Amino acid sequence: MANYLITGASRGLGLSLATALAREAESQVGLVFLTSRNTDTPKVAELVEKTSGRVVPVQLDANDPKSLAAAVERVADHVQGKGLDVLVNNAGVQTWTRGKVENLSPIDLTNSFHTNVTLTHLVTRAFLPLLRQGKRKVIANISSTVGSITLGPTFEHHPAPAYKISKAGMNMLTVNYSLDYRSEGFTVFAISPGWLRTDLGGAGADLPVETGAKEVLRYLKAAGPQLNGRFLNIHVPGWENAPESNRYDGKDAPW
Amino acid sequence: MANYLITGASRGLGLSLATALAREAESQVGLVFLTSRNTDTPKVAELVEKTSGRVVPVQLDANDPKSLAAAVERVADHVQGKGLDVLVNNAGVQTWTRGKVENLSPIDLTNSFHTNVTLTHLVTRAFLPLLRQGKRKVIANISSTVGSITLGPTFEHHPAPAYKISKAGMNMLTVNYSLDYRSEGFTVFAISPGWLRTDLGGAGADLPVETGAKEVLRYLKAAGPQLNGRFLNIHVPGWENAPESNRYDGKDAPW
Repeated sequence: MANYLITGASRGLGLSLATALAREAESQVGLVFLTSRNTDTPKVAELVEKTSGRVVPVQLDANDPKSLAAAVERVADHVQGKGLDVLVNNAGVQTWTRGKVENLSPIDLTNSFHTNVTLTHLVTRAFLPLLRQGKRKVIANISSTVGSITLGPTFEHHPAPAYKISKAGMNMLTVNYSLDYRSEGFTVFAISPGWLRTDLGGAGADLPVETGAKEVLRYLKAAGPQLNGRFLNIHVPGWENAPESNRYDGKDAPW
Repeated sequence: MANYLITGASRGLGLSLATALAREAESQVGLVFLTSRNTDTPKVAELVEKTSGRVVPVQLDANDPKSLAAAVERVADHVQGKGLDVLVNNAGVQTWTRGKVENLSPIDLTNSFHTNVTLTHLVTRAFLPLLRQGKRKVIANISSTVGSITLGPTFEHHPAPAYKISKAGMNMLTVNYSLDYRSEGFTVFAISPGWLRTDLGGAGADLPVETGAKEVLRYLKAAGPQLNGRFLNIHVPGWENAPESNRYDGKDAPW
């Protein structure tokens, strides 16, 4: 029975992942902490009601040290010494730049890096003590193949340089964590959930959000040392031979 | 006769590169603009005097839009319509984190990203008009193999996570520029100058700064479309079979 925490989970992939986790057998999944700056939404309330206390919403604004500390305390109260098993850093932003990279505003670049990298770091280190108490010690950082420097030419026409740069930074952060905590039994990896039909991905995306959530969940359940330090990609039948930009063949993405 | 501009050039690799450029034949190298927040130093004065006007110090604090605009104007005045041929984004910082990555301060992470990525972006886009007027259109971003995500395990014990993360981000910025401007004839690449004995690299580094400068200069002189979008590594005889962390074999570094 493993306890999970998912950030940025009031909508999109995070909410879908929380929903999928709450459907798992209790022998597999214990409590599911769903964090967001605003957890007071109809969708969150609906999920909490349906799952009779198994999904626990926790308000968390990682920019506010008090909010972060209170969230850690709230989770600690709930798990009663059993710790947290799996942390999913899902919160993130994607912004758009028209035309060439010279049009990328420094504010946009700074803010994207702050949200996608610095806040991921702050949340991760804040939950390390609870993760150390957990049995599985898994940290999954939701990344994107769009953040693969190697695949830069493949995603040339994806107009989100701030997002790409921040995800490359997040990937390096992931590798740093994977190296520094493996001796303590941690498993830390980056995973690209596919291009999903969410607010972030847009309506024209490849896959329904549930498909991405199902695949991320599969990796989370199986996660152990064999996944440490890797950049995972989902596997969706029928998409194995698609063009490189949307090839969901389950093979690791290149950095 | 190509005009060069090197940022962060009042010391270290930048100063050594400016010195080496000023020794080249005038058929190869025209003016060498040396920028720094503070160009009023004995070493800069000495180089300017020795080179009788060929090295032009230009005060530039990229955090200050007025300073940046004034620097661009000053360079424009000097080149008299001939533009800038080669921009070397050399300015950067490296900071240290004791112990594991959880000790990385968010301020350090933010500041390193700001200096190494955001300011590189601001300087590059400010000089694009002059580079468009130049014949060679080369932009070289001084990176580091330490910023290779693939080589993360190799540099596990290099205690500079903020630097590594920022250089991974800078590498993605480089690839974005290389794709967006290749149709205009630009060549944009990242280059690792080796671990050099400078203030940034420390006294225990592998190579004298002049060795790194000589190798970077070799690439700058040869730069053309064949180098666009690449992550270059220097070649130093005798270091081809060294351990991966200091193998200067001239082969591209992995992202």
